[in-house]
Amino acid sequence: MKIAFLGPHASFTQLAAAQLFPEDELLPQASILDCFNAVETGETIKAVVPLENSIEGTVSMTLDYLYKTPSIKIEAEAVMPIAHHLMIHPESTIENIEKIYSHPQALAQSFHFLDNHYKTIAKQDFSSTAAAAKYVSENKELPIAAVANQFAANLYGLKIINRNIQDFEQNHTRFIVISKEQNTYHNNGLDVLGEKSGMLITLPEDHPGGLHQVLSVFAWRKMNLSKIESRTLKTGLGNYFFFINVVGEWQEILHGNALKELESINAEVDFLGTYKEFLLES
Amino acid sequence: MKIAFLGPHASFTQLAAAQLFPEDELLPQASILDCFNAVETGETIKAVVPLENSIEGTVSMTLDYLYKTPSIKIEAEAVMPIAHHLMIHPESTIENIEKIYSHPQALAQSFHFLDNHYKTIAKQDFSSTAAAAKYVSENKELPIAAVANQFAANLYGLKIINRNIQDFEQNHTRFIVISKEQNTYHNNGLDVLGEKSGMLITLPEDHPGGLHQVLSVFAWRKMNLSKIESRTLKTGLGNYFFFINVVGEWQEILHGNALKELESINAEVDFLGTYKEFLLES
Repeated sequence: MKIAFLGPHASFTQLAAAQLFPEDELLPQASILDCFNAVETGETIKAVVPLENSIEGTVSMTLDYLYKTPSIKIEAEAVMPIAHHLMIHPESTIENIEKIYSHPQALAQSFHFLDNHYKTIAKQDFSSTAAAAKYVSENKELPIAAVANQFAANLYGLKIINRNIQDFEQNHTRFIVISKEQNTYHNNGLDVLGEKSGMLITLPEDHPGGLHQVLSVFAWRKMNLSKIESRTLKTGLGNYFFFINVVGEWQEILHGNALKELESINAEVDFLGTYKEFLLES
Repeated sequence: MKIAFLGPHASFTQLAAAQLFPEDELLPQASILDCFNAVETGETIKAVVPLENSIEGTVSMTLDYLYKTPSIKIEAEAVMPIAHHLMIHPESTIENIEKIYSHPQALAQSFHFLDNHYKTIAKQDFSSTAAAAKYVSENKELPIAAVANQFAANLYGLKIINRNIQDFEQNHTRFIVISKEQNTYHNNGLDVLGEKSGMLITLPEDHPGGLHQVLSVFAWRKMNLSKIESRTLKTGLGNYFFFINVVGEWQEILHGNALKELESINAEVDFLGTYKEFLLES
């Protein structure tokens, strides 16, 4: 099966896709839009895109394209702890290094470690952590290192000098698997963290208390929200849709009275699916 | 006055900062963290960072650093319509162009135009739109073009061939001005779109209906929310804080009964300020 993912090769999204789909053909895409287009046109069956906190893509685009492409649903979510490693060419030594390359956000996330241990070494922005690792692998004569992930170190044959140099142990990136049908994603031995349902809710007018009314539908049923995010509609300033995650399986309730309740307050609901949340390795 | 902004030079954030602070010294930073650090350490008085929908930074970082740095407040918000232009070296002609360079998100946002008019010309990812424009300006012998903003065209002396090639006219980027004190930002003749208040709300436990309770405080006062976003706390999975924007000036009410009401449900509130929203040119 063909699976699109937000590239480039050795990106964090590929690290996620390789764990979610170890047996499948992974096709890198240049942008989040390209991932949605691949699924929309049938070029690939599914795609893996970042949902939260990625250093590779502007993740609000994922929500916008979910809104613009109602045929595309979510069939799994995956959480990966962010782990940055400092790596060099295997024929280099760290004492000779004069410059460290990486994506600016990865350098920022490793700021305290690099400041404590490699304060005098220059830092240089690169378009992605993977591209930085590739550049180090192709220029063994240069005195350079890269901050990137384990996958990039393996792919480009680099030697890891310092592991887990990120400042916050508990930082995570979230990814979703999208497809045109709400297929059941077949777990490949990954740990399951829980189950959730996703939906996009549009309110007809920007009226005070509208979101509160929507949340009432879930609150009195004691349903717990694990994510809520408002996004501006492209029709102009001041109109919004909301991405909401509800913990657990609630499709039956949604198609019963909860959906009627949402309709009665003129909310439009695009149900994205009930799906499991998996834990990935970094 | 020194103002930090998320770089590189000729980025969309600089385009915003130059309009917000036309008389001041603008200092580019490599990451959103560096912008917060510049203000925190007093290196600059203020900083301009993206809040929503930027192609340059992972904007969720802005919310995370606002949470981690309680001394930093918001003193203005600015909205800029996204406008991408196709540009070449003034000594080139568009008929000779063989490759178009830009940030992958800018190429994605101009997908339909480029597909309709320059389908056979290769597209190449670059680390930023500004870097792509700079590269075109420095390599006049190469048959290349860039997708970037007006500011980059001016700075690097490029000729704009096609204006406003973005697919959605109504797409916007939002920026905020941060500083350690809730100074009143002095408007430089920019149009004011409205006034809003920002706050971060943390709930002590992940209990069903907690956010609904928080929103009740605003709903029965007929206060309108213009933005809400949940972010995972770095202490582990399943704990959240919320960034909320309320339309209008409500500081008096907050410090009266609304704040007491929020305290009674054990919500922690970090008030970020009441500030104006300005319209920028793209």
